[in-house]
Amino acid sequence: MRRTIFYVSDGTGITAETIGHSVLTQFDGIDFDTFRIPFVDDDVKARAACLRIKTSYAQTGVRPIVINTVVDPSLTEILAGSGALMVDVFAPFIGPLELELGTPRSRHVNKAHGLVNFAEYEARINATNYALSHDDGVATNYADAEMILVGVSRSGKTPTCLYMALHYGVKAANYPLTDDDLEKLELPARLKPHRNRLYGLTIDAQRLTQVRENRRPGSRYATLDQCRWELAQADKLFRREGLPVQNTTHTSIEEIASKILSALGIEKHMF
Amino acid sequence: MRRTIFYVSDGTGITAETIGHSVLTQFDGIDFDTFRIPFVDDDVKARAACLRIKTSYAQTGVRPIVINTVVDPSLTEILAGSGALMVDVFAPFIGPLELELGTPRSRHVNKAHGLVNFAEYEARINATNYALSHDDGVATNYADAEMILVGVSRSGKTPTCLYMALHYGVKAANYPLTDDDLEKLELPARLKPHRNRLYGLTIDAQRLTQVRENRRPGSRYATLDQCRWELAQADKLFRREGLPVQNTTHTSIEEIASKILSALGIEKHMF
Repeated sequence: MRRTIFYVSDGTGITAETIGHSVLTQFDGIDFDTFRIPFVDDDVKARAACLRIKTSYAQTGVRPIVINTVVDPSLTEILAGSGALMVDVFAPFIGPLELELGTPRSRHVNKAHGLVNFAEYEARINATNYALSHDDGVATNYADAEMILVGVSRSGKTPTCLYMALHYGVKAANYPLTDDDLEKLELPARLKPHRNRLYGLTIDAQRLTQVRENRRPGSRYATLDQCRWELAQADKLFRREGLPVQNTTHTSIEEIASKILSALGIEKHMF
Repeated sequence: MRRTIFYVSDGTGITAETIGHSVLTQFDGIDFDTFRIPFVDDDVKARAACLRIKTSYAQTGVRPIVINTVVDPSLTEILAGSGALMVDVFAPFIGPLELELGTPRSRHVNKAHGLVNFAEYEARINATNYALSHDDGVATNYADAEMILVGVSRSGKTPTCLYMALHYGVKAANYPLTDDDLEKLELPARLKPHRNRLYGLTIDAQRLTQVRENRRPGSRYATLDQCRWELAQADKLFRREGLPVQNTTHTSIEEIASKILSALGIEKHMF
């Protein structure tokens, strides 16, 4: 069974898509064709969106579902003219919160996303630059690092650091364990003063060999034996040094990031 | 007025935080202290979360608000014991969707986030590696690029490319306009075959001079005159070449990304 979903928003549509995705994945056995219609913030765009949804209805013969975060009720009314099932994301929460907070909501279009706070923007950009300049052991002054991810090459350190920067404005450095570290089973001296900010990443050997093989086909670096040895040594080192560790094999970047922030006690807002 | 908000989830809490943030920013004049309690997936963790929320209630004397995406109703019941206002994110949507889709939802805990699809993970990692290796004109073979962002140094290209990679698995390269390009008002020959994938970024001169001054204090590169000249030339070049352009000064990375995807007609799911 297939159903067509439109995420319609007066902003980026990210909120609509996030909640829609979370809700729809709770329904098994249905394939969803999903489309984003962002920046629907005037009559003309609302009518264009309505036409697109109506056309999909006519073509598939099945009522589309609109996951809607448009704040202006007159635009929502235009969208409803498409005949789609309208799911209004904000509506159910506004009443109880107005009551609890004792104040009516304001109806600023685009307020939810797209509102730029320079301090926030600066934090994200600075943290991104930090991640790039402290990636893969390039810069080794960790004084400003809020966390330092440690692991063998291709264990997931770089994407996690970039995600931390873009989403939480957290300055995350990463340190790739060298053969020397792995043989000695010891962290390099310059990491030791930062022990409470260290977090280990590991990965299954089978998966690591695939990832490395894609990167450097036929290399010794990519062999299963080499991957197994490095990971076993890294695990010993993590245990000896008492570092918290996360296996990245079956874990999304979002989940890894969330676990590290919890473990290190870093309370930051998501952007 | 201050209110304490807890985002409680059996997964990362990202859905709870996204919807909560969107709804709460619609209420003016209230400061929210927000806390994440992720991975609440058993009784023990639910009781610990309940205690933390109850303690906050006792300390502040004001009822906390829980934005809840925990799927298991028995855990939600434990949380409700804290006395907080419970806002269940999924509840309002499940009924109408069960009716429309003709099937009950399944109650897989952690399904919404954290579920890892290798193909998805691979796409994100590959796109991130692509962005890093095609950043700042480093690699100049654009055959695989789904988009190429063009602009002067520090106009917002790199964070946008990384965001595209991490969120949409889109391979985005970026090309920093050189003095030579800006003097000749011409795109380099190697970009021309990819014209339908080019997108220009610009920024206000005042803002650019600040950003560059942070990076290279006292340099000619950071002077307002230099920034003004580069931006004016870049604007002429974008117009002459007919490129779509976005000013990044007052626009969040999310919004920039969403606009570029729309303009280039790239329909990708968010991860």
